[in-house]
Amino acid sequence: MLLKRFLVGNPLKTAQAVHQRLSKRLALAVFSSDALSSVAYATEEILLVLVPASLALAHFSIPISLMIVLLLTILTLSYSQIIFEYPEGGGAYIVSKSNLGEWPGLTAAAALMIDYVLTVAVSVAAGIAAITSAIPILFPHRTLLGVLAIVIVLLVNLRGVRESGKVFAVPTYMFIGALLLLLGAGAYHFMVGRMSPVTPQSVITQAGAQSVSLFLLLRAFSSGCTALTGVEVISNGVTAFRPPESKNAALTMAGMALILGTLFLGISTMAYYLGVIPKADETVVSQIARATFGEGFLYYLVQGSTMLILILAANSAFAGFPRLASLLARDSFMPHQMAMMGDRLVFSNGIIILGASSGFLIVLFESDTHALIPLYAVGVFLSFTLSQAGMVKRWLIKRGPHWREKLVVNGIGAVTTAIATTIIASTKFMHGAWIVIVLIPLIIMMFRGIRSHYKAVTEQVSLSRGHRPPIPRRNIVLIPIGGVNRAVIRAVDYARSRPGEIRAVLVDTDSEETAKAEMQWAQWGCGVNLIVLPSPYRSILGSLLDYIEEILDKEPESWITVVIPEILPARWWQNILHNQRALMLKAALLFKDRVVLTDVPFHLTR
Amino acid sequence: MLLKRFLVGNPLKTAQAVHQRLSKRLALAVFSSDALSSVAYATEEILLVLVPASLALAHFSIPISLMIVLLLTILTLSYSQIIFEYPEGGGAYIVSKSNLGEWPGLTAAAALMIDYVLTVAVSVAAGIAAITSAIPILFPHRTLLGVLAIVIVLLVNLRGVRESGKVFAVPTYMFIGALLLLLGAGAYHFMVGRMSPVTPQSVITQAGAQSVSLFLLLRAFSSGCTALTGVEVISNGVTAFRPPESKNAALTMAGMALILGTLFLGISTMAYYLGVIPKADETVVSQIARATFGEGFLYYLVQGSTMLILILAANSAFAGFPRLASLLARDSFMPHQMAMMGDRLVFSNGIIILGASSGFLIVLFESDTHALIPLYAVGVFLSFTLSQAGMVKRWLIKRGPHWREKLVVNGIGAVTTAIATTIIASTKFMHGAWIVIVLIPLIIMMFRGIRSHYKAVTEQVSLSRGHRPPIPRRNIVLIPIGGVNRAVIRAVDYARSRPGEIRAVLVDTDSEETAKAEMQWAQWGCGVNLIVLPSPYRSILGSLLDYIEEILDKEPESWITVVIPEILPARWWQNILHNQRALMLKAALLFKDRVVLTDVPFHLTR
Repeated sequence: MLLKRFLVGNPLKTAQAVHQRLSKRLALAVFSSDALSSVAYATEEILLVLVPASLALAHFSIPISLMIVLLLTILTLSYSQIIFEYPEGGGAYIVSKSNLGEWPGLTAAAALMIDYVLTVAVSVAAGIAAITSAIPILFPHRTLLGVLAIVIVLLVNLRGVRESGKVFAVPTYMFIGALLLLLGAGAYHFMVGRMSPVTPQSVITQAGAQSVSLFLLLRAFSSGCTALTGVEVISNGVTAFRPPESKNAALTMAGMALILGTLFLGISTMAYYLGVIPKADETVVSQIARATFGEGFLYYLVQGSTMLILILAANSAFAGFPRLASLLARDSFMPHQMAMMGDRLVFSNGIIILGASSGFLIVLFESDTHALIPLYAVGVFLSFTLSQAGMVKRWLIKRGPHWREKLVVNGIGAVTTAIATTIIASTKFMHGAWIVIVLIPLIIMMFRGIRSHYKAVTEQVSLSRGHRPPIPRRNIVLIPIGGVNRAVIRAVDYARSRPGEIRAVLVDTDSEETAKAEMQWAQWGCGVNLIVLPSPYRSILGSLLDYIEEILDKEPESWITVVIPEILPARWWQNILHNQRALMLKAALLFKDRVVLTDVPFHLTR
Repeated sequence: MLLKRFLVGNPLKTAQAVHQRLSKRLALAVFSSDALSSVAYATEEILLVLVPASLALAHFSIPISLMIVLLLTILTLSYSQIIFEYPEGGGAYIVSKSNLGEWPGLTAAAALMIDYVLTVAVSVAAGIAAITSAIPILFPHRTLLGVLAIVIVLLVNLRGVRESGKVFAVPTYMFIGALLLLLGAGAYHFMVGRMSPVTPQSVITQAGAQSVSLFLLLRAFSSGCTALTGVEVISNGVTAFRPPESKNAALTMAGMALILGTLFLGISTMAYYLGVIPKADETVVSQIARATFGEGFLYYLVQGSTMLILILAANSAFAGFPRLASLLARDSFMPHQMAMMGDRLVFSNGIIILGASSGFLIVLFESDTHALIPLYAVGVFLSFTLSQAGMVKRWLIKRGPHWREKLVVNGIGAVTTAIATTIIASTKFMHGAWIVIVLIPLIIMMFRGIRSHYKAVTEQVSLSRGHRPPIPRRNIVLIPIGGVNRAVIRAVDYARSRPGEIRAVLVDTDSEETAKAEMQWAQWGCGVNLIVLPSPYRSILGSLLDYIEEILDKEPESWITVVIPEILPARWWQNILHNQRALMLKAALLFKDRVVLTDVPFHLTR
C-alpha cells in the first residue's frame, strides 16, 4: 500500500479531472509523437526488404517512399473530414460502429487493441535501438532495457499524466529540429558536391541480370507503411483543442503530415545517397547521422531525441488503450472494471494490461524492431479502412452540403487503405501478420462472449413484476468447533450478538477429548447448545456435511449460517499451519444453496 | 472430485484399518525391497569411482565389497536388538528422541526425511536405468519415464495399499530368483573354465607405476555403502509380524541380510571376473546378465525384476515418509494436517509432498542414478549412528539382563556407523553430500519454528482462569449495494432472517442511478433502512470504509457484520467479470477487529 502511494501518488478527487485546452503548437507535440517517431524505423524497414535481395534494389526505396507520402496525403484529407464530423473524438471503433454496425465496430476495436500493444512494443524496441546504436556496449542488454522502459512508462501512466503538454513539447520539437538539421546538413553536403549516390559499379552490373519481383516491392512498401501509424491520433483528441476545435485540429493534422512527409522522404533520400545498408546493431538513422555529423554533440542529439520521441509514442498508447477499453467496457464488451477509474483518475486496469502484454512481446521478440514490424501495420490499416468506409456510408445516408465531394475524398481513402491493408496482410502474412489475422476474430469472440455473459447476468438478477419481496425465514446458526479455546469463544460471542437459534457442533473423533470439551463448554459456552456428532469415517468434514444436509432437509425454508472460528496468523506463511479444515469446509459448502458462511477471525499477534 | 474418486477410490471407514499380520515369507517380501534393490546399483557405484582413476584399480572392488558385507553384519546384529527393545516399531526418530533427547531426535528425523525422498529418486532412476539398458531406444526419455513412474506410485499410494503383501511377494522373489540364477550360471561358467579375470596386460603394467590413493578407496567404499540403505526397514514394522513378533522380525532380518550379502558380493565378484566397465547407457547388472545369458528370456527376466523391485523400494518410502511426518506432526514439528488421514486411510499430504520432492529431484538430476548417489548415503548412515548411539545410552541407563553384551553390540554398531558416516560425508562432500549437510540444520530449524509457532498459538488461544465468558454485545448489519437486483434482495432476505439493526448502504456516484435505486428500494427493500453515502473521491470503497470506521468509533463495543451480495458465476473464468469490488472490500476489512464479513452468494445458472 505504502509502495503504491510512493510509486503512484495520492488519490485525486473527481473534480480535479479538468480538461486542459491545448494550443496548436502544444497539441502538435502531444498528439504527433506516435506518427513522427515512425520516421526512426520506416526507411530502415524498406531497406531491410530490398537490400538482402540485391544491393541494386536499394534505389527503389525512393519511389516507394513517394508512394507512402502520397498515401499520407490521402489519409490526412480523409481524416480531416472525420475531425469535423466527430468533434467529440472519432476513434475507429466509434466511427465504424455508429456507421457500419456492431461487427465492423468490434473488428476495428480488436485491430486497435492489437495496435496499441504493438505501438508500445515497436516504439520501445526502436527507442532502445537508437540508444544501443550510440552506445554499442548496451546492445546485449536491449531486452532488459526495453522491459525497464515499459515499466517506467507504466508507472508514469498509473500516476496519471496531468502535468500539461509542455513535457511533451521539448522532446518532440527537439526531434523535429535535430532531424531537420540533419537533412539540412545533408542537402548542403550534396550541393557542395561532397555527397553522391554510392552504388558500387559491380552492383549496377549485377542489377541488369536481375528481374525485380513485384512481390518484393510490395513487401517493401508494406514495411514502409509503418511510417503512417499514428496519423489518426489527432482525430481522437479534438476536444483537447482550443475553439474552434475542429478547425484547429485539422490545421494541426496538416502541419503534422507535412513534417512527417518531409522527414520521412528526407531520411529515405539521404539513406540512398549515402549508400546506407541496414545493420543488426546500428539503426539507419544512426548511420546517416554518424556519416553526416561525425561522433559529436549533434549525433548524440539526433539519437537522444529519437529515443525520447519513441518513448513518447509508447506513452501515447498508454492513453489510447485504456480509453478504448473503457469505451468497450461501457458497452459491456470488456470487463466492467476496465471502466473503473483508479484513485489517480486513470483507467489503471487497462494501463496494466497494456504494459504486461507489450512487455511480453518485447521479451518474446527480444526487443527486435524488425521482428515486430510485420505484425504492426495490418491492424492500423484495417482500422483506417473501416473508419473511411464508415465515413462513406455516413455521407451516403446523411448527405448535407458538399456531400458528394466529401464522399469522394473518403471513398478514395477507403479504397487506397483497403488496397494497402490487402498488400500488407498478404506480403507480410508469413512473417507474422498471420498472428494478427488469427487474433482479431478471437478478440471479437471474446468481446461478444463477455457481452452475452453480462446480458445473461442482468436477466438473471433483474427484478421483474412477477417477483414479490421475500417472506421472512428462519436462520439456524452452527458453530463447528474442534475444542474450546478463545477463538471459539469469540465466534460464540459474535454468533449470539443477534438473537436466534445457535448450536455449537463438535465431531467426536476422540472420546477423551470430547468429554474434556463438553466440560469446558459448560463453563465457557455462554449457554449455547453443544451438539456432538459421531464420526464413523473419522472425517470431521463428512460428519459436518451430513448434519448440515439433514437440517436442510428438515427445514426446507430455513437459512443455515455456519460461523467458523478462524485463526488469523500474524505472518502470511503461517497460514499453511492453520485452517486447513476450515478451507475444506468452505469449499464443500460453497455451492449449497441456503448455506451462508461467516468467518470470525481471531488475530494472533505472534 | 469425480476424477479424484476415479484415481483414488471411494472413502474407507476407520474400522477398515485392520492390521494384516504377515508370515515371515511375506514380511521379507514387503520389507526388504528397499535393501535388496540396492544390489542393482551399489557395485556399479564402486566401479564408477575406481575405474575412471585407473582400470587396474577395479580389483579393489572385491575387498571393498567384503568390508561392506562386514558392516552389514554389524548393522543386522545391532538392529536385532532394537527390534526386541521397540516391538511397537523403532524408527531412528523414536529411538534417538526417547534415549538421546530432542535435538538428536530431530537430526535423525531430518536425515530420514531427506533419505525417503532420495530413496524414491534413486530407486526410480535405477529402475528406469534397468529398463533403458534392455531397451536402449528409451534412454533419451528417462527423465519423463522417471516422473511417470513416480506419478504411478503416488496414485497407488493415495489409493492406499491394502491389497496384502502378496503383491509384493511376486517381484521380490522373482528378483532374488533371477539374481541367484545369474550367480549360479556365473559360478558354473567359472568352474568349467569359461570365465577368468579379464585384466589386460597393459593395465597391470600400468598399475605398478601408480600409487593407490586412500581417499579414492574410501570414496569407493562410500559409494558402495548405498548397498546398506533400507536394512533398518524391518525394525519399523515389527507390529506387522505374527507373534512372537520380535523373534520373527529378527529372523526375517537375518534372512534378508544373508540374501543381500550374497547377491551384492556375487554381483561384485562377477563384475570383476567379467571385466565389466560402467557405461552411461547400460547398467553393470545388465552387462553381467547380457554376458552370461545372452539376449534371451533370462536376461529380460533379470532386467524386468530389477526394475520391479526398485519401484517397490520407491513404494516403501511412500509408506515411511508420511508415517514419519505424521509422528512429527503429532509432536507439532510438522503442520498438523500431516497427521490427518485422508478418506482412503492414508496420510495424503505426506504422500503428495514426497512425490513432488522426489519428482523434482528426478527432473533436476535428469534421472541419473550416479548423480544422486552422493546425496544418498549420508542421511541413512547419520540415522543409523543416532539409533545405535541411542541404544548405547539406553543400555547404560536401563541395564537389565545381559546389558553389557548388548551394550557392546550396539557400541560397535554406533562406532562403525559413525566412522562410515564421517567417511561418506567427507569423501562425497564436494560431489553433493554438502547439500544434505546444509539441508539437515535447515530442516531442524523448520521443525522447531513450526513447533514454537504452535506453542505460541496455544498460549494465545488458551482460556485461563483470568478470563470470563464474554458479555453480550450489539451487532450492526450493513449491506453494501450498488443497485437493486435479485442478488441484493437475497442478501436482505438473509440479513433480516435474524432480528437486529440492519442498514443497506449505497454510495452515491451517479445521482440519477441513486434516485432510481431509492425508488426501487421502497418497493423491494423489505423495510430495511437505506443509507446513501456521498463520494467525493468517486471511490465506493473509500466511502464505505469511512462509514464503517465511523460506526466502530461511535459504538466501541458493537460487532459490525458486512453482508455482501455476491454473484457466483456458473463458470470459474467468469469470476474475472464480477465481484472485483467485493474482493477489494474484503481485503480492506480483513484486519479490522469487530468487523465480520458474510458473503451471500447468488448462483447464476448460465
